[in-house]
Order: sequence, then C-alpha cells, then structure tokens
Amino acid sequence: MKIIFYSAKNAQPWLEAIAVALPDAEVWLWTPACAQRQADYAVIWTPPAELFATQRDLKAVFNIGAGVDGVMALPNLPRGLPLVRLNDAGMATQMAEYVCHALIRHTREFDLYAVQAKERRWKLRRPVNRAAFPVGVMGLGSIGARVAGAVAAFGYPTFGWSRSPKSLPGITAFSGQDRFDDFLHAVRVLVCMLPLTPETEGILNASTLSKLKPNGYLINVARGRHLVEEDLLALLDDGTLAGAAIDVVRREPLPADHAFWTHPKITLTPHISAVTLREESVAQIAGKIRALERGEDIDGVVDFQRGY
Amino acid sequence: MKIIFYSAKNAQPWLEAIAVALPDAEVWLWTPACAQRQADYAVIWTPPAELFATQRDLKAVFNIGAGVDGVMALPNLPRGLPLVRLNDAGMATQMAEYVCHALIRHTREFDLYAVQAKERRWKLRRPVNRAAFPVGVMGLGSIGARVAGAVAAFGYPTFGWSRSPKSLPGITAFSGQDRFDDFLHAVRVLVCMLPLTPETEGILNASTLSKLKPNGYLINVARGRHLVEEDLLALLDDGTLAGAAIDVVRREPLPADHAFWTHPKITLTPHISAVTLREESVAQIAGKIRALERGEDIDGVVDFQRGY
Repeated sequence: MKIIFYSAKNAQPWLEAIAVALPDAEVWLWTPACAQRQADYAVIWTPPAELFATQRDLKAVFNIGAGVDGVMALPNLPRGLPLVRLNDAGMATQMAEYVCHALIRHTREFDLYAVQAKERRWKLRRPVNRAAFPVGVMGLGSIGARVAGAVAAFGYPTFGWSRSPKSLPGITAFSGQDRFDDFLHAVRVLVCMLPLTPETEGILNASTLSKLKPNGYLINVARGRHLVEEDLLALLDDGTLAGAAIDVVRREPLPADHAFWTHPKITLTPHISAVTLREESVAQIAGKIRALERGEDIDGVVDFQRGY
Repeated sequence: MKIIFYSAKNAQPWLEAIAVALPDAEVWLWTPACAQRQADYAVIWTPPAELFATQRDLKAVFNIGAGVDGVMALPNLPRGLPLVRLNDAGMATQMAEYVCHALIRHTREFDLYAVQAKERRWKLRRPVNRAAFPVGVMGLGSIGARVAGAVAAFGYPTFGWSRSPKSLPGITAFSGQDRFDDFLHAVRVLVCMLPLTPETEGILNASTLSKLKPNGYLINVARGRHLVEEDLLALLDDGTLAGAAIDVVRREPLPADHAFWTHPKITLTPHISAVTLREESVAQIAGKIRALERGEDIDGVVDFQRGY
C-alpha cells in the first residue's frame, strides 16, 4: 500500500513513525515535484489545495487533528472520499488538563492570590462555593465528554450541550437548537469544544454570552471563529462577563495590536490546549488503515453534510 | 447534652450551625468568664490552653480541621480524652483542585505562556510528556488518597508513600521508613500531605529533596514545619529543584522580609489549599456526637502515640 504524508513542518519524524507503524507500506512526503505519483492513503496537516488535484487513487484521507474545518475548506477535496479525523489520540486528556486548570484558576482566584503575593499580603479569600459555578460544555464528542467528566469529578455542577442527544454519567445534557438557551441560562462557566461548521461559526456572541449566569466566564478551546471577538471585549468591559481563557483566535498568530494580548480579564495561550501527539496519532491512523484494508468500517469519518 | 465551641474569630455562625444540627443540645461559646460551666463535648479551633484546665466532664474534643498538631501542642489537653479530627469534610476536593492546578500549571508551563503573552509572542512550546512527570503523594489518608486519585486520572504516573501499607487503584504505593528513599527516587513532583508529628517535622530537607528525579518540583500543602525552608531555597538556587508551590510556611502570616515572597521559582499562597467548610464540618461533627451518644465507635480519633 502507498501512503503520502504532508505537513508544512516537522515532516520527517512523522514519515518515520508511519513507516514503523506500517512496515509493508511505501510512505513518502508529498511535494509538487512528485505530485503525479499516486497513493492509496493521504495523511495530512494543512495541505496545499494542489495535493488533491492530482491524486486519483486515494481510498481515504486522514487529518492529523480533531478539527477538520481547515481541510474541509480546500477547493479540491474530493467529496466522495472518506475524510477521517483524529479521535482523542491523547488530546482529550490534554484538553481536560487545560480546561480544569483554567476553571480552578478562576474559581479559586489564583490570579488574585498572585497579586496579593506581589504585595506581600498573607490573606485568605473566602472559600469557593462550587455550586455557584455551574459549568457548561458545548460539544460532547470524545474530547468534550472527557472534559465534562473531569470537571464533574471536581464537584462542579456540570452541563453539556450537543447537536444530538447524549447520555453521560454526572452530566446534565441538553441537545438541539431548541434547548440551547436553557443550557446557556443554566451555566456560569462556558467551555466551547464544538467543531467549526457554518452553523457554529460565531456562536459565541453578544446574544448567547449574555444568557449566561451573572459573572460568567468563557473558556474557548475550539476555534477562534466560534467567537465574535468584539462582542467578548464589550461584555468584559461592561461587566456582563467576569473573564475569559482564550486559546484560539480568529487570526493565528494573533496580530501584535490585538486587544486580547493585554486585556486584564483575558488569559491568553497560543493554541496549546491540546496538541497532536505523534505517537498516539500514528498508532490510531495505522490501525484505521489496516481496518480499511481488511474491508472493515472505521470511526471518525467526517459527515460532509454535518461538517465534522 | 452540652457543647462548648471556641474559635478566635467568626464564632457566631458556627454556634448557630451546631445548634441547628443538634437541636437538643445546649451550645455556648467558651470564654474565660464562664470557664467553670461544664460541657460534654468541645468543638474547637486553636483554643487557648486554659480551655481544658477547667473542663472536667468532656467526653470528646472535636478539632475543626484535619491537622491536630496545634491542639496536640497544648499543655492541658487531656490525654485520656478522644480527640477527633475532621475527616475530609469537603477538604479533599479542595486539596485535589489545588494540587492538580499547581501540577498542571507547572507541567504545561502556564507561567511561561504568561510571560510570552506579555511579550505578545504567539509560540507553541513542546507538548508535555506526562511520563516524564511522575508524581508522589506523601500521606495517603482520606485527603491524600483523593489527591493521588485526581492526579492519576490526568494520566500522570502516580506514587504514594504512607506510614502503614495502603492499596489504592492506579497508585504505586510505598510504605514505611525503609521504602522512603525508593519512593523519592521514583518521583519528580513531590506533594506533601502528611500530618505534622515529631517524625515528620523537617522531612522535606536537603537530603530528601535531593533524591527526587532531576528538575524536581515540590508542592507543600501540609504544614510549614514539614519543610526546612533554607534547604528549599538552596536547592532552587543551585538548580536541583525546578520550582515549588508553597501554601504553608513555618511562620504564618509569612514575615514581610521572607525570601519566599519574591523567589521566581516559588508560587506562594496563604494557606488556602483546603479551608474548613462550616456546613460539611458541622454535619460531620454532629453525626459523630450522635454516634457517641448511642455508644457507637467513630472514626477520626487521634492516636496520641502516632500523633495524628
């Protein structure tokens, strides 16, 4: 079997890992120079649109990431071909770490303790009442479910919202557009883990964020384009929201003059909440290629209609 | 039944809560002026030594806290009387929050991301390999076990060390003095949750902390006197240790000229990792008083020999 790999940077260790995981395969880096050489499978990260223009024999395309909004936007992506996204592959635990850290940092007021320490003030603040911080997770796929479970394990009232109904232990789950407002009204800390699709773009806006409980807090670890950034700034400045932990922005890298860099109520990180782990990802993709070769079904195949 | 309560501050809401939980009891605040009035039970937080001098009918003393080193040091504490410490009572989850936050903050390099954000630099650091951060929890009582479980749930290799052997799912547990060095050699992030006793005072010192894996990190949420503070400073300054999260210090409040306030490798908080929660504590103590009145055994009774 023949496999092309493409990533704009750091390709060599991926090529080697795929070759080790699938020793019978021919694996090569896709380049314009050898674009005519046909492969059975493509393993890709932010490929150029030309990649798909000349590949005629592909049986499946594997995206090295859970979000496929980037590759879906490519003009030449063949719609009849299975596009497969990563399923957790080590990202869920990273995301649980990031979200729990951001949540606890906020509810336990660690930033205020840091200020006190700078002033050499040894002073207890009031204990946190977790019941006053209901958390809502938007998106309950494999990663969202893991995050919601981790939050619930710390004793926060935990809500979830997803497109299709889900049942998760310890989580009050809402589903569908007609329950979205009920979900928003129930939560104070909102965690966005949705896929980016035409339906979810801009879903974090003045109207939706205003429906959170007073002193709401936003944690966006999905995509920058879920958020209307000007709306967040306005709601932070007028006191509707207490703060936000922002890991993704509309334009990455964030432009140097962007207000998020210096806003006192925003904790900013450079899209690091969950990075793709090579070892786990290659193992998962190799397992799925072997399954396809045996004629079996695999999970993680993107529904083009749904957008993820 | 008659109950005296003592706390140097904020006594009124405790008195009211105890009266509500035990409606048949007479409950009053202990003061020197009414020291002669005899009670059956004492519920106390850092009481004056005089409190025990005149109480002759006490059947048990309840400490509003998990650590009893302070009350054990009082000269008049009657040794024949059951001294009862709080058993979790909402502290275990707080402690799990604090420790997981400190751990993730360190392993995921959130302080370095904060520096980058100040410099308006959008730059990913390398992903964390959790296997490189084995965590060791000293003390596996109800609170320590909860913390170790929370750490293990995030996928960190997790070790425990305790006086007597313990078996906890997902935790590699060592016990006894002769396994202490094996435990220290196995871990990189050391979490101290021990009771303070003559045996454990100063247990965090140059010799023990030097046995951690390279770039070790200390999280002390137990008592300031577990740590030889000068030793920690020396090990941070010579690069043996990478950092420390310190919630407790030898002298609280920390003196204004203490090196911990400004040390760049120390994250300092003012003894807030787990505060006593009134509602949970009163419910637990009331339940134990009712059990004693029925002639039943209760847990949490301090072993004076052992010191906790």
